[in-house]
Amino acid sequence: MLKNDTFLKACRREPTDFTPVWIMRQAGRYMKEYQAIRKRVDFLTMCKTPELAAQATLLPIDILGVDAAILFSDILIPVEAMGMEVRFTEKGGPVFSTPIRSEAQVQGLSIPGPSESEERMPFIADAIRLILQGLDHRVPLIGFSGAPFTLATYMIEGETSKNFTWIKRMMYADPQLLHKLLDKITGAVIHYLNMQIRAGVHAVQLFDTWAGSLSPDDYQEFALPYVERVIKELDKRGCPVILFANGVSSILEYMGNSGADVNGLDWRIDIGVARKRVGNQVALQGNLDPCVLYAEPAEIRGHVKTILHKYGTGPGHIFNLGHGILPDTPVDHAKALVDIVHEESSSNRS
Amino acid sequence: MLKNDTFLKACRREPTDFTPVWIMRQAGRYMKEYQAIRKRVDFLTMCKTPELAAQATLLPIDILGVDAAILFSDILIPVEAMGMEVRFTEKGGPVFSTPIRSEAQVQGLSIPGPSESEERMPFIADAIRLILQGLDHRVPLIGFSGAPFTLATYMIEGETSKNFTWIKRMMYADPQLLHKLLDKITGAVIHYLNMQIRAGVHAVQLFDTWAGSLSPDDYQEFALPYVERVIKELDKRGCPVILFANGVSSILEYMGNSGADVNGLDWRIDIGVARKRVGNQVALQGNLDPCVLYAEPAEIRGHVKTILHKYGTGPGHIFNLGHGILPDTPVDHAKALVDIVHEESSSNRS
Repeated sequence: MLKNDTFLKACRREPTDFTPVWIMRQAGRYMKEYQAIRKRVDFLTMCKTPELAAQATLLPIDILGVDAAILFSDILIPVEAMGMEVRFTEKGGPVFSTPIRSEAQVQGLSIPGPSESEERMPFIADAIRLILQGLDHRVPLIGFSGAPFTLATYMIEGETSKNFTWIKRMMYADPQLLHKLLDKITGAVIHYLNMQIRAGVHAVQLFDTWAGSLSPDDYQEFALPYVERVIKELDKRGCPVILFANGVSSILEYMGNSGADVNGLDWRIDIGVARKRVGNQVALQGNLDPCVLYAEPAEIRGHVKTILHKYGTGPGHIFNLGHGILPDTPVDHAKALVDIVHEESSSNRS
Repeated sequence: MLKNDTFLKACRREPTDFTPVWIMRQAGRYMKEYQAIRKRVDFLTMCKTPELAAQATLLPIDILGVDAAILFSDILIPVEAMGMEVRFTEKGGPVFSTPIRSEAQVQGLSIPGPSESEERMPFIADAIRLILQGLDHRVPLIGFSGAPFTLATYMIEGETSKNFTWIKRMMYADPQLLHKLLDKITGAVIHYLNMQIRAGVHAVQLFDTWAGSLSPDDYQEFALPYVERVIKELDKRGCPVILFANGVSSILEYMGNSGADVNGLDWRIDIGVARKRVGNQVALQGNLDPCVLYAEPAEIRGHVKTILHKYGTGPGHIFNLGHGILPDTPVDHAKALVDIVHEESSSNRS
């Protein structure tokens, strides 16, 4: 039994004594303890060394007091297991030496099944087991994967992209090839997340970070159906599914009907408006602008109160940033955020 | 009298025989005639040499047959006139050697009035006069400026930014300083646009490109009031005002009520939905994903028909891309776009 299951209750829209909070990229560069680990090993080695991944995952639980842990890993891990060679540059971006541009390349990708997933990514289940030991039932652990469209952007662009010109080129000039690729990625993502669920995660988040770069029509054709299939075919065993995108405003109703239990919002939408639009179907996670954490705690408190007030009364809110925490955020401010959310949301309820 | 005033009629939501079309960045790197000019001079010199700016402005009228010309210039020209030193790197981005980070720097900026604007940027009115001669009343000429918030992002970040961390740092930690800066920029923008109107442009577009990076609350505090003031205080002399932002979905109602005659939409919103939301107040400009132009004309036609159909019957639509045309777009495809919009919208009306 979990000592603090507030996060899971909020995912299920059950009443809680306070609004749970966690922070996307909460184990990251802004923490000196994280930087100390990274001084010794590169990013990918860190992801693939269960002891280090577990250590990073646990840092924000101990230091910030967040209400959920999230597996320290990278969204491109399952892509590597499909047969693509990935490396991380020091400037921070992933690079594929041979981005996907042809039918032959799509055909050459494998879909690792349950046993192949365990064989090719044994460090995932190992890290999860170590994390669960370290957590000792304090808070739940979130597993995650990139959603198919977002993984496809990296695989086709070959690196972090501004305009997504290569994937859109394929989308408009050869949509069937993109569908073939998305179909394969979807299979791989399902097995990858099932492996995490078997190892014991309590919830999973699908990061469809770049889905917000699509027109609503293209979202419905190239992103949504694959997310829906992942959610439908997942062996969930009671795990809530969170669907996050960056730039949700035009696609929120689709996300609300996707089968996800929770919709993760970026900061460019009013969470009160979002609740009116989809709050009868899903819980909502978000949505403070990460840059607010540059300001002093007194300012942060004002912004937190605004978001709690906009969400309003009743269950179903998980506080988070609207995107990952920025590397130059003061740790004290992240800690203040967690405390403020707990304080302000408790006083709200009493 | 203009031979083709379809664009201006559509801005005023008056009936037209076909849907007018122009393309953001229509005089740009994708054209070999543009590249030929740029081989001889750098970008800023091109902006400041009336003959070259006029030549570039006229290219898409002759080559593509668009229904409006837009002054070839850069949104940072008036910022330079405020006293900031700007240079353009070969990778394409503008760089300020001393970005604005302090009160003293804000105080040091000047607001060029009518005569100072003409003295410091004589090439603007000269280019407009040459363009009007070259156009010979064929189509209207659009003048433009960056909107205050978007200009402030460049001035504070110092270069093209991904997360806008410096301006948001100021926004959350020292909002009054940002307001002081925005106030000065607003004054400069008004005089800058009035100078263009005096020189003879037929319409003006405010590019608030980065306003879509703001939460709706922050948009209402840091972007909208300054846009409203520009529109209100402008000596318009009948010029319609177009307000463009990238990522309009969360802020469209504010844009619709800003006093602008036209709202420019990015591609991430359904133009039919946008029309329902603000189409009683403003005309709409947009909103094809620029990447659609990578596809063959037959595919482009399908996407154009969808947008025309979504907008529906009645006046008030100016066709455009949802963002600037990309440098690797085939010119033939841009030409095809213009022809297709004209064909499909004429047949729609007959």
